[in-house]
Amino acid sequence: MPEKYNVPVEKLEKLVSSIFEKNGLSAEDAAILSGSLVDANVRGMHSHGVLRVENYIKRIQQGGTNPHPNIRIVRESPFSATIDGDNGLGSVVSTHAMRICRKKAEEIGIACVAVRNSNHYGTAAYYCERLAKDDMIAFSCSNVEPLMAPPGAMRVAIGNNPFCMVAPAGKHPFINSDMATSQVALGKVLDARLKEEKLKGPFGIDENGQPTDDPNKVKFLAPMGLHKGYGIAVLLEILCSLLSGGQFGDDINSMYGNVDKPNNLSHFFMAVKISALRDLDEYRADMDRFIEYLQSIPTKDGGHIVVPGELEEASKQRAYREGVVLTEGLLRQLLEMDRGTVAADADLLALLD
Amino acid sequence: MPEKYNVPVEKLEKLVSSIFEKNGLSAEDAAILSGSLVDANVRGMHSHGVLRVENYIKRIQQGGTNPHPNIRIVRESPFSATIDGDNGLGSVVSTHAMRICRKKAEEIGIACVAVRNSNHYGTAAYYCERLAKDDMIAFSCSNVEPLMAPPGAMRVAIGNNPFCMVAPAGKHPFINSDMATSQVALGKVLDARLKEEKLKGPFGIDENGQPTDDPNKVKFLAPMGLHKGYGIAVLLEILCSLLSGGQFGDDINSMYGNVDKPNNLSHFFMAVKISALRDLDEYRADMDRFIEYLQSIPTKDGGHIVVPGELEEASKQRAYREGVVLTEGLLRQLLEMDRGTVAADADLLALLD
Repeated sequence: MPEKYNVPVEKLEKLVSSIFEKNGLSAEDAAILSGSLVDANVRGMHSHGVLRVENYIKRIQQGGTNPHPNIRIVRESPFSATIDGDNGLGSVVSTHAMRICRKKAEEIGIACVAVRNSNHYGTAAYYCERLAKDDMIAFSCSNVEPLMAPPGAMRVAIGNNPFCMVAPAGKHPFINSDMATSQVALGKVLDARLKEEKLKGPFGIDENGQPTDDPNKVKFLAPMGLHKGYGIAVLLEILCSLLSGGQFGDDINSMYGNVDKPNNLSHFFMAVKISALRDLDEYRADMDRFIEYLQSIPTKDGGHIVVPGELEEASKQRAYREGVVLTEGLLRQLLEMDRGTVAADADLLALLD
Repeated sequence: MPEKYNVPVEKLEKLVSSIFEKNGLSAEDAAILSGSLVDANVRGMHSHGVLRVENYIKRIQQGGTNPHPNIRIVRESPFSATIDGDNGLGSVVSTHAMRICRKKAEEIGIACVAVRNSNHYGTAAYYCERLAKDDMIAFSCSNVEPLMAPPGAMRVAIGNNPFCMVAPAGKHPFINSDMATSQVALGKVLDARLKEEKLKGPFGIDENGQPTDDPNKVKFLAPMGLHKGYGIAVLLEILCSLLSGGQFGDDINSMYGNVDKPNNLSHFFMAVKISALRDLDEYRADMDRFIEYLQSIPTKDGGHIVVPGELEEASKQRAYREGVVLTEGLLRQLLEMDRGTVAADADLLALLD
């Protein structure tokens, strides 16, 4: 029996959607959630993909997240909206917010939407890509609970708040840069510990508040670029929770540690139509030139440096061709959560036979 | 004779303004330039302060920069403008752009301005602070010539493009985070070389494209957080040169290396009125709570972590109380460039007597 399975994208979406419907979500909301999670797998960001289904379901079952939120606009202008997510699932609330952002940006040329009372929203890139398709430059960020300590700190101060910007090009794929503001995820620190390796830089903070590259001494995640990433995380926090009226600091709950409590996350979305600032064809042609310039920068092995978004695009093409690669354990877990409905799909069952 | 002099802020502004007027700038443009440079000293960012006067003057004298630019709007919408700076001095062009951004944001609630054909604009914080005073959240960035190599690269790929965001608070000073996207400035690498110290992380790229903390092996600046800072620099490049129709890559000239050539820089400015998204008083109260939360994070020495902008604010208060600290060499250089006019100011001359 193989340890990994290539599951066709569409089948995986149906399976995940079915799991959410079984847990009380409307067909529409279940499809949104499933689409956003599978999109992360498709783009190679497996840590933000269907691996999270179990936690999302646990949060619904234990009352941490509201499966039937009354998402409402609490403040509005022609170019902006502030949204209360009523503790709905992050992707459901955020897809709603992204659509409002897109509609306003299409009408006015620019828009921003701040969201409070939401939960983990997956990857920022998911929303940005959908906005950028309409010839817009898109930006989004989210806060998370405090996980990082800036140099000197004796405790965590701020989340490794993720953000993304996506800009369309001409014949080349979008430039897409999506990152958390910590230098590495906690998983990489744990992995280095197991392998008895040093980190490739002072990517953690020790018990004395000092940067360290020794994974055994890492007590807190370090911001990317130390004080610089801390500054960026603070700015993103302002865009998310301060503009929306949401929670920050210790009033944010952990999505894993507090499954029965609202996550209390905030998000921010922004889009601007390129044509407001520049002739779209000229912009597209120059973006292609810019991407080709980056592709002209050599690496020692004879290749070229990676253009932000290039690896995700390659992963996407592979996933649509060959399916999403899941471990047997994860696929079994999903099929069990579905309790048989989609698993009646002979092809999917056959994978595990 | 002391090696350092405390020059009152107003006197320093007059001296620098006089130097620019002597070199053909209008009184208004000279005052703008002087104000922006002295502001950097006042906020403790001496590398971006009056130290740069010599280069700015050299560029005017050798034809690299146009002292009488025809700054014009080449594309406009109610919330946006794209500006051709006609190779004017960066601060003059950018102050013009910032004012257009402010006027539009006051009318519409949000605005963005992209600028091309400009020169070194000093600190991004200077423009952001002026926008933030009007109860706006402000953002600005600039490109510079390629100076950084992402991990793996065998040559520089992108500028250490600086950016800043400023957000007003209530009783506390603005949160202000202004940084370049390289982990350290070239000056810090050279300094570590002289002192025979290691860098505090892989803050340079060696001749094989590998991150290194050995200052003697640093061939190129490393992006902050390595691949992450590279991604950010690319995004900022898009906002600056791709949206404005400006130059990028090897078409940007060095402000120091090519004093007789246009710098070909691009900038971007954005401002959003806080009240569009949130009740201003509630926002202010929460910003104060947020700042006090950050100030509650302890450091080992019994202090608290720095709130972004805190050090600059302290420096500003000190400068207005005690003057800007300049070395004798720099003060003499400025007085000589002024050729006697303001130096007739007895107090200033007396400093050097």
